[in-house]
Amino acid sequence: MPQRVSRLVRRIVIVGAGCGGGTAAQFARKTDRAAEITMVERENYPQYSRCGLPYGISGIIPELTNLIEAPEERLKRNRIGVMLGTEVTSVDPGSKVVHARKADGVEVEIPYDCLVLATGAMAWVPNIKGAFKDGGKELKQGVFVLRTIEDARGIQSLASKGKRAVVVGAGLVGLEVAEALMVRGCKVTIIEYLSNCILAMVDDDMAQMMADAIRGHDVKMFNEYEVTEILGDDRANCVVAVDRKTKEERTFYADLIVIATGQRGETRLAKQVGCDVGNTKQIVVDDRCETCVKDVFSVGDCTEYPDLITGTPTVSGLGTIAVKMAMVAGINAAGGDERLPKGFLQTRATEPFGCQVAAVGPTSAQLEQHGIKPIIGKVRGFTLPDYFPGRKEIYVKVLAHPDDGKILGAQIVGEDRVHMRVNAYAVALQAGMTVHDFAQLETAYCPPAAPTMDVITIACEAVRLKLARGAAKN
Amino acid sequence: MPQRVSRLVRRIVIVGAGCGGGTAAQFARKTDRAAEITMVERENYPQYSRCGLPYGISGIIPELTNLIEAPEERLKRNRIGVMLGTEVTSVDPGSKVVHARKADGVEVEIPYDCLVLATGAMAWVPNIKGAFKDGGKELKQGVFVLRTIEDARGIQSLASKGKRAVVVGAGLVGLEVAEALMVRGCKVTIIEYLSNCILAMVDDDMAQMMADAIRGHDVKMFNEYEVTEILGDDRANCVVAVDRKTKEERTFYADLIVIATGQRGETRLAKQVGCDVGNTKQIVVDDRCETCVKDVFSVGDCTEYPDLITGTPTVSGLGTIAVKMAMVAGINAAGGDERLPKGFLQTRATEPFGCQVAAVGPTSAQLEQHGIKPIIGKVRGFTLPDYFPGRKEIYVKVLAHPDDGKILGAQIVGEDRVHMRVNAYAVALQAGMTVHDFAQLETAYCPPAAPTMDVITIACEAVRLKLARGAAKN
Repeated sequence: MPQRVSRLVRRIVIVGAGCGGGTAAQFARKTDRAAEITMVERENYPQYSRCGLPYGISGIIPELTNLIEAPEERLKRNRIGVMLGTEVTSVDPGSKVVHARKADGVEVEIPYDCLVLATGAMAWVPNIKGAFKDGGKELKQGVFVLRTIEDARGIQSLASKGKRAVVVGAGLVGLEVAEALMVRGCKVTIIEYLSNCILAMVDDDMAQMMADAIRGHDVKMFNEYEVTEILGDDRANCVVAVDRKTKEERTFYADLIVIATGQRGETRLAKQVGCDVGNTKQIVVDDRCETCVKDVFSVGDCTEYPDLITGTPTVSGLGTIAVKMAMVAGINAAGGDERLPKGFLQTRATEPFGCQVAAVGPTSAQLEQHGIKPIIGKVRGFTLPDYFPGRKEIYVKVLAHPDDGKILGAQIVGEDRVHMRVNAYAVALQAGMTVHDFAQLETAYCPPAAPTMDVITIACEAVRLKLARGAAKN
Repeated sequence: MPQRVSRLVRRIVIVGAGCGGGTAAQFARKTDRAAEITMVERENYPQYSRCGLPYGISGIIPELTNLIEAPEERLKRNRIGVMLGTEVTSVDPGSKVVHARKADGVEVEIPYDCLVLATGAMAWVPNIKGAFKDGGKELKQGVFVLRTIEDARGIQSLASKGKRAVVVGAGLVGLEVAEALMVRGCKVTIIEYLSNCILAMVDDDMAQMMADAIRGHDVKMFNEYEVTEILGDDRANCVVAVDRKTKEERTFYADLIVIATGQRGETRLAKQVGCDVGNTKQIVVDDRCETCVKDVFSVGDCTEYPDLITGTPTVSGLGTIAVKMAMVAGINAAGGDERLPKGFLQTRATEPFGCQVAAVGPTSAQLEQHGIKPIIGKVRGFTLPDYFPGRKEIYVKVLAHPDDGKILGAQIVGEDRVHMRVNAYAVALQAGMTVHDFAQLETAYCPPAAPTMDVITIACEAVRLKLARGAAKN
């Protein structure tokens, strides 16, 4: 009775073998040693680190394929099937079958008991005249986004000493690519629509230190410029941008253009299956990572999930969050019962141009959009005691609720020892801690490691002082 | 009516101008801009970093006087008086007068409204025959402890290339001194009573990595040896130690001997004033840092205070804790009302021999003394993603309560990025967080800074798994 046997073995199909799909597969396997697990992936590589691509371009990581995190042998060892170069064309949620087309054009049907949509996102390209070949969907020669190993390979092939590179967008990815191009010897210009870089990550005053670091590296950044056109017939050779204040047009010659203006989740399949999408246009999931369609889960860049502090559904685009969701979806798809926290912290970090930036929780602007005017503690301190050689400046900003001093967010910028410091605040947000409690913290101290009183506690003391003064006024 | 005027100005006298006394003075000044604040200090230097002394000996910090943190000009600017080289002989708590003797022998009386005893500790020297000159109280030539700038100067004067140095005691201070002597070119031998180094700081398995690092540096460490005698007439030249298991005697020739076997609080004055001392023989204070004698406060190494996790009064000897207590005592002595948390976390760190160690909360042995057999999550991981160059091994151990998974302590050892990681656990202990919640943490991630899933969360996952298995058994 072959039918009965096949029903005893749980069949899990995962669309997408990025860090979301790959992690879901791994945790599904840990949960159900017998399940049949199949990943279907459009690209030709199994799980690799997209966040590592800039370091592959720069050459810090010698080969782009070094970024592969789940080589096929390891998948095989864990009995996880992966169909590379295979596009899922549709899903039939009634009969629970995935329809896909392999690279050679052969159509396949893959039945499932549970489906995980880890379709990720695609780079979003704003409306720029001349960006695409013949007005189609393929970018013009010399124009790139950075999402895949193939994208990185293309960028690498043009990025060499003396070449002029224009990066459109000064977010986290834009800056990391700009640094990589600088390391390869390109003359780099960054063009950004907003008045500063990384404003999705930190407040303007903190972002300014990154802007200073960029300019300290002989990289040009033009803010409040809108890119309107890319010139060049077969091959792009020029970027036209308009000063948003003066409306003056400016031309930037370019051998290489990278558009890093954000991403949009891949939700086509999810919509076809009948999954809800929310206000952010991404897939809605519950705390089990399940969509509104039974037995269909979704994780990562194609989903939305509440921010812990504001409660608002948010698209993070962060690898850490994709991995957390994938653990939960993988376990649940394999019959377990794992839950996400009621919201995400959005802990984030980057360090291009020798400037380390890390943050957790909403920025001041995001809080104000939610009607909260945070009390801010901002301090300049040092990574090591005053008397110890090699200490570096470090700036810490804490945002707290004006009513009770609850820590709502934190941002840190400096040359050294920034990232791990933000983890302490991440725990505080997770625990719902106030600045009153945090100011009591005993941080790790020894002269070569940190000062007796760390900047992270001093920043909370600064908020406490403001709150006390405010209370004194009333 | 001069009496009336003098009563309007609060008089705060602080005995001891170390980090406790100095910080208390500073926060007293912040709290009461008009108070008369006087520190009385036996040594000839105002507040300096004792923890920095090993780095002064090694030469990493060029001059020992660079360690002075509150130079007299700054004290003067803040109108904080400091009487150096002045010994407090007695205190009359009835008439509220401090009696002191200046270096020139002149006796002075200093009236106070509030008194802060920041008398610190003295190095404790075990019963070793021949350690002291003529059986007196002065150490024999060539024998040192490390507590003061003068001690460090003495050690420095004998520590040069090729000299044989013996360090007695492999605690935090012993190892830091041993490293400093090694840096100066000495041939260093460490003799330790217990079976491993830094056992007050971390569990034996974690301490072993430090022991390996020490031996990797061509420094000899002898464990389970008791030092019984120091030989040499005018000048010490030999250390005799007995193997505690075989009872065999062993002789170590030495040009220089440093005894680093711990410290004992200076409580003579406190007892004379009538302050209670507890089971640890240190001064008992409440959460306002006040002793049982009204208007007499005490802070730092001469006090005991509960450990947050075990609730047992403990002597920390940590600078961070001295500073926290001093803030509270300084504010309260100046009329404020500041409170300590109900217990201390004992966050601690060191990094001799290229081995970084940090910990928070009790060790396994300390927990077991309190009847708690912790569930342990121990993981080996890396500081950076697998594909990123320069990553280092890092070991994380989390101790959690078997009933509810509450995090009770954590220990981290590695070559890099250890100390700031422990701060995240310090916040967790402060917040009373469980491994279940901590495992949800989103840590700061970008390829050059940390892996997507940090070892600190993976260690908590390991505990969760054990707890789940235990539950499954029941």
